[in-house]
Amino acid sequence: MTTTKRVREILSWYAGESPGTLANLHRLLMHGRTGGTGKLVVLPVDQGFEHGPGRSFAPNPPGYDPRYHFRLAIDAGCSAHAAPLGSILAGAAEYAGELPLILKCNNSDSLYTGADPVPAVTAGVEDALRLGCAAVGFTIYPGSAGRNTMYEEVRALAADAKAAGLLVVVWSYPRGSGLSKEGQTAVDVVAYAAQIACQLGAHVVKVKPPTERIESDAARAALEKAGVPLDTLAARVRHVVQSAFDGRRIVIFSGGAAKETAALLEENRQTALGGGFGTIMGRNSFQRPHDEAIELLHAVMDIHATTTAAPGD
Amino acid sequence: MTTTKRVREILSWYAGESPGTLANLHRLLMHGRTGGTGKLVVLPVDQGFEHGPGRSFAPNPPGYDPRYHFRLAIDAGCSAHAAPLGSILAGAAEYAGELPLILKCNNSDSLYTGADPVPAVTAGVEDALRLGCAAVGFTIYPGSAGRNTMYEEVRALAADAKAAGLLVVVWSYPRGSGLSKEGQTAVDVVAYAAQIACQLGAHVVKVKPPTERIESDAARAALEKAGVPLDTLAARVRHVVQSAFDGRRIVIFSGGAAKETAALLEENRQTALGGGFGTIMGRNSFQRPHDEAIELLHAVMDIHATTTAAPGD
Amino acid sequence: MTTTKRVREILSWYAGESPGTLANLHRLLMHGRTGGTGKLVVLPVDQGFEHGPGRSFAPNPPGYDPRYHFRLAIDAGCSAHAAPLGSILAGAAEYAGELPLILKCNNSDSLYTGADPVPAVTAGVEDALRLGCAAVGFTIYPGSAGRNTMYEEVRALAADAKAAGLLVVVWSYPRGSGLSKEGQTAVDVVAYAAQIACQLGAHVVKVKPPTERIESDAARAALEKAGVPLDTLAARVRHVVQSAFDGRRIVIFSGGAAKETAALLEENRQTALGGGFGTIMGRNSFQRPHDEAIELLHAVMDIHATTTAAPGD
Amino acid sequence: MTTTKRVREILSWYAGESPGTLANLHRLLMHGRTGGTGKLVVLPVDQGFEHGPGRSFAPNPPGYDPRYHFRLAIDAGCSAHAAPLGSILAGAAEYAGELPLILKCNNSDSLYTGADPVPAVTAGVEDALRLGCAAVGFTIYPGSAGRNTMYEEVRALAADAKAAGLLVVVWSYPRGSGLSKEGQTAVDVVAYAAQIACQLGAHVVKVKPPTERIESDAARAALEKAGVPLDTLAARVRHVVQSAFDGRRIVIFSGGAAKETAALLEENRQTALGGGFGTIMGRNSFQRPHDEAIELLHAVMDIHATTTAAPGD
Amino acid sequence: MTTTKRVREILSWYAGESPGTLANLHRLLMHGRTGGTGKLVVLPVDQGFEHGPGRSFAPNPPGYDPRYHFRLAIDAGCSAHAAPLGSILAGAAEYAGELPLILKCNNSDSLYTGADPVPAVTAGVEDALRLGCAAVGFTIYPGSAGRNTMYEEVRALAADAKAAGLLVVVWSYPRGSGLSKEGQTAVDVVAYAAQIACQLGAHVVKVKPPTERIESDAARAALEKAGVPLDTLAARVRHVVQSAFDGRRIVIFSGGAAKETAALLEENRQTALGGGFGTIMGRNSFQRPHDEAIELLHAVMDIHATTTAAPGD
Repeated sequence: MTTTKRVREILSWYAGESPGTLANLHRLLMHGRTGGTGKLVVLPVDQGFEHGPGRSFAPNPPGYDPRYHFRLAIDAGCSAHAAPLGSILAGAAEYAGELPLILKCNNSDSLYTGADPVPAVTAGVEDALRLGCAAVGFTIYPGSAGRNTMYEEVRALAADAKAAGLLVVVWSYPRGSGLSKEGQTAVDVVAYAAQIACQLGAHVVKVKPPTERIESDAARAALEKAGVPLDTLAARVRHVVQSAFDGRRIVIFSGGAAKETAALLEENRQTALGGGFGTIMGRNSFQRPHDEAIELLHAVMDIHATTTAAPGD
Repeated sequence: MTTTKRVREILSWYAGESPGTLANLHRLLMHGRTGGTGKLVVLPVDQGFEHGPGRSFAPNPPGYDPRYHFRLAIDAGCSAHAAPLGSILAGAAEYAGELPLILKCNNSDSLYTGADPVPAVTAGVEDALRLGCAAVGFTIYPGSAGRNTMYEEVRALAADAKAAGLLVVVWSYPRGSGLSKEGQTAVDVVAYAAQIACQLGAHVVKVKPPTERIESDAARAALEKAGVPLDTLAARVRHVVQSAFDGRRIVIFSGGAAKETAALLEENRQTALGGGFGTIMGRNSFQRPHDEAIELLHAVMDIHATTTAAPGD
Repeated sequence: MTTTKRVREILSWYAGESPGTLANLHRLLMHGRTGGTGKLVVLPVDQGFEHGPGRSFAPNPPGYDPRYHFRLAIDAGCSAHAAPLGSILAGAAEYAGELPLILKCNNSDSLYTGADPVPAVTAGVEDALRLGCAAVGFTIYPGSAGRNTMYEEVRALAADAKAAGLLVVVWSYPRGSGLSKEGQTAVDVVAYAAQIACQLGAHVVKVKPPTERIESDAARAALEKAGVPLDTLAARVRHVVQSAFDGRRIVIFSGGAAKETAALLEENRQTALGGGFGTIMGRNSFQRPHDEAIELLHAVMDIHATTTAAPGD
Repeated sequence: MTTTKRVREILSWYAGESPGTLANLHRLLMHGRTGGTGKLVVLPVDQGFEHGPGRSFAPNPPGYDPRYHFRLAIDAGCSAHAAPLGSILAGAAEYAGELPLILKCNNSDSLYTGADPVPAVTAGVEDALRLGCAAVGFTIYPGSAGRNTMYEEVRALAADAKAAGLLVVVWSYPRGSGLSKEGQTAVDVVAYAAQIACQLGAHVVKVKPPTERIESDAARAALEKAGVPLDTLAARVRHVVQSAFDGRRIVIFSGGAAKETAALLEENRQTALGGGFGTIMGRNSFQRPHDEAIELLHAVMDIHATTTAAPGD
Repeated sequence: MTTTKRVREILSWYAGESPGTLANLHRLLMHGRTGGTGKLVVLPVDQGFEHGPGRSFAPNPPGYDPRYHFRLAIDAGCSAHAAPLGSILAGAAEYAGELPLILKCNNSDSLYTGADPVPAVTAGVEDALRLGCAAVGFTIYPGSAGRNTMYEEVRALAADAKAAGLLVVVWSYPRGSGLSKEGQTAVDVVAYAAQIACQLGAHVVKVKPPTERIESDAARAALEKAGVPLDTLAARVRHVVQSAFDGRRIVIFSGGAAKETAALLEENRQTALGGGFGTIMGRNSFQRPHDEAIELLHAVMDIHATTTAAPGD
């Protein structure tokens, strides 16, 4: 397929990055069912590591095999599949070249949990190159006492990745003793998390859908004074996307815990209306039976591919 | 424009630094509306990272786009633009060569705050060179239990920077469990902070305008005995500048929180009278509408360019 | 497009190579008009370096601009474009991701010619990664007194390339004081050149179409005793392909000097009948006007895509 | 001065290079009397090393002091000054920041001359950074038996320079046992030399004005068949510029041995008419008395700044 | 199978080598039909590279596929298979773990031949480890003007190999301008070649069957004076084996050019009687049809496994 005008426009936002990085961004943006629309729907599966296998895969047992997720992402026409080292190793040769891969380079398990998490660095740029990945992925936890460790790790990873022509995807999840539980998805906090990821050099940022809550009094004062509407999810997504360099960085939203189809589709419609660039949807897809998952993913993709962002007020 | 006598004089203070460092100092001193006067007016924008995007940019939404600040600094004739890695990445190719850039190499966010902050190191000399920056910038927090970490980081960064011909700008902000809140801007503390930055090898030091408060009894005794006048801001600025190698290091003063124009101009007049080398003014410029910001910046620049330092007593 | 059975079969020959290398081989085999057929038609343009600009591009002046060849390869649906560093640099950002690129990593110019040529190494794996290339290309001259230098260079390059997930394409051109001029294209010599490239770890080998001449008495004795038919180009291509690990390495044939369309098509038909995997056709395409070149390339592609290799005797 | 449309256009040809490299190219293109016109007039002084001091500086003795050439280049408004390590060291601190510097990184002296020269590498990227240079310069001798050594050296230098945000200027001077004396300036050979420099990654190429001679029979056949006009210097310059990626690389022409003013101006007029990007004029300027040299340089600059390239036939 | 007493004895000769090296020697000595007897029968196939593909494989075309030789060595119960990088790459994954592999790390082709050959280094220890090889193999040409290059290369390779726990096999083939054609297999020369290999740190040495010729007058004088019997091949083998640290290094003998079965078996019988440790037999096995080759290899293996070395006089 010929590169679309929209994809060319998005690539222009990354002027100054290496041609290899641009080429890998092009791969993601032109691949799969949303290819060419400027939207991304990514299948991430790191729950085996993060939450444990039974909790993650018992609802749909074929998911115990990492190759199931390669297959699911290919069958559904996802933009990319993201997973930790072991999962990528398990399918990279068999599905070589069939879809863009994002190597998740740090991970936390749930057998030890502290108030201020710092994930382990489990893979790097050399792994990503050898395994044929288009991107490296990294999680940061703004709000954790250990946040700076993660910021410095992602800085080093991103420098290496960009020199080697890879894309950098950052999961920016506020969490830690600096924040209340509800504050993790407060709209000002999510917007702030997106900004931090962009400042650290991320090309693609993944955040959670923001709630109406505003955590910081200073932020509330500024937002209220400026009359920024935050009453709908679309409006809040718009604020988050604006916070990512005025919409010139790709921000995608996670699906979160498994939920009903109708709620999920509405969430994605709101995301798209707000100018979100797509979704990264794990449990809601791989915990459903294969065909049901495909049907859902197609519905989600079509929402993103066809919904025009409504202008802000 | 031909290099002025004043600029030559200032460069002479840095004899022994590499010619590349001198050339970059020359670039800052000869650039923009204050070019040639020996004064610097810098546009710093790291508030997206430090304070969060909504709080920083909602008052003037074009500022969500990092390129807005490149444009603003160019339009106003600022001496340089300082920003974190992501912001510089977002505009470095498009505005290549149009103004001197200072890459802010460490940053703190506000989602986790501790009594003794240590910023994350988010960029380095290789980034600065690749992106065409004239200087690296670094924040130290004298008064923090973690101060030595920062001193050692800036020492390493400065060594690399000087070998590569870059300028070193240090934000020296007393903060931490070693100081009262009011003590952070006490005149003896600010003077001390300027001295520490100079001792660590800074070429340009940025401090906050000092208050009349004196934090240390020992300092008070010595200052009083010597009859050092500290009753006006000009007098206090004079003490701070003197504390920076008797005025042979460039010290510039921050504008602080957004305030009214008249107060701001008066503050800058006092700074200039006291022998300050200029200002680094973020929120007071980029949170105003573009044309208003330009008008203000021009007024500030003209104060610095035309005000002769009054002799101390 | 779904990966075809034939492409899966070819990938299986390279089991043990890194998934990244397989993914890049997949990219070449699935790209363009011959995508999925197991055949490759590559546009190589290194004649500016090897023969000089006027001699190469005066026949079709748009070719002076390296971007013309990116465009031509894209428009024609070539499997890849191969060129030296400067040419790739000139188009890699603008055409990022639009077609697989092969970075030619050594080159000879014609201003100095010796009996035993050794090309200069002009690029490497880091360049290829940064520029988003799928493969590195390297020329060896078996028969040159300097051959071992080239063999050792390509070994080192290939080791780095494979660790980084790149493909290795070797141009194996017998030449040098060890061979007569006619011997350079003798069928035993071309077969030998293909074998050497495979032994050095090449994934794709490029040779010249072999003539009926047999250079080595020992080879003639063995081939005659075994009754190997060599009277048609198809038969000779079959022997060369068999010499490349019994057809389990991709061997493509060069078009050579510009020639008439009918001769060229017949040459390609014979190559395809003999089991050749395609062609790498430079002067015959880029020295023709654009539309004529497209027409010819399409005809050549269609011959390769649709011709079934005739069984050997 | 605001960046001109022409300078923006030229910068766009180098998309994919680092922002730092673009910034240094911007510096050269916006500096001095031709600043903003897209033309460069460079003062190179390496004759002390290459030809010996008496031969070079006795005609105008102030030139024995390297600082004279800094001064001359500044006074005349040259785009840059190019010189070997020692000369740059001798003036870099005193004139820090006053004009763009090109560090000549290899040099040949005349006390030993062989048929196949290879210059000594006398400086590198770290020197250039420490001394505040905008560019590294390197000489290659296509036609020399030692050419590949130089090609491999410039490749390594260019890779380092680009990563550090420097510009790469290549002096491409055909010379050596592969060429006749007259062949060194034959139009096909000069065009070929320009092409080679571009392929090796040069941003700016410096060649000698081409004569009507055509050295290679193959080149003559192609150029005659295509009807390429080569009868005037302008026409020949046009062919050389076209050979440098269809005019998308900056090619400047040397002044050669000292000659009369009228001849020199006419040569520059022809160069400008042919689309040359300027001149690099050493002996013709620094061997004249200071004021005469300034006058001549201004005349040359004005020719380049105001002459529009005549279209080719 | 339990490690035999004889194998333990042989391993004891290599005390001081790394346990990894001993373990790999154990693998060779315990593998295949001769496993446990202290004898080795190795299948080497580097003729595709050394002599050319047609000449090597036309007699038995399945041999064009490198995997044929893996299969043949497995089917026959060989102690190991030795081959160049490309061949090992072609089968290492498919036959992983099924037989010990020796990676031939240098090779010469026949398209350029000089009086004093030096093979190209085509692989190394990292390749051997990645590909699961038990040993590296290396050819030296004592008698060549370039011998010291090879000695130094094998020294470096052996050091790396031993540190990584690999075995070192040296093909020691006298050849070059220092020797007559007949002298290459003279008994004193072969014995000398074995000694040199041992001195360079070889664990296993491969030489050609020695003739009755004595090349060196000094050697002849000494041997005659001592009354060393050299009239039978067994006697000459005994001298060669004695020259390899008095039989405490494994020396195996090559089969040479294809020959008749009876002659070959007799040669092996003599080798075994003389205390040779086995044979490395390429063309005589892989140029025969598969089943015939198996039959021959079994016969050869059984000779070595069952023949007791006759005591010397």
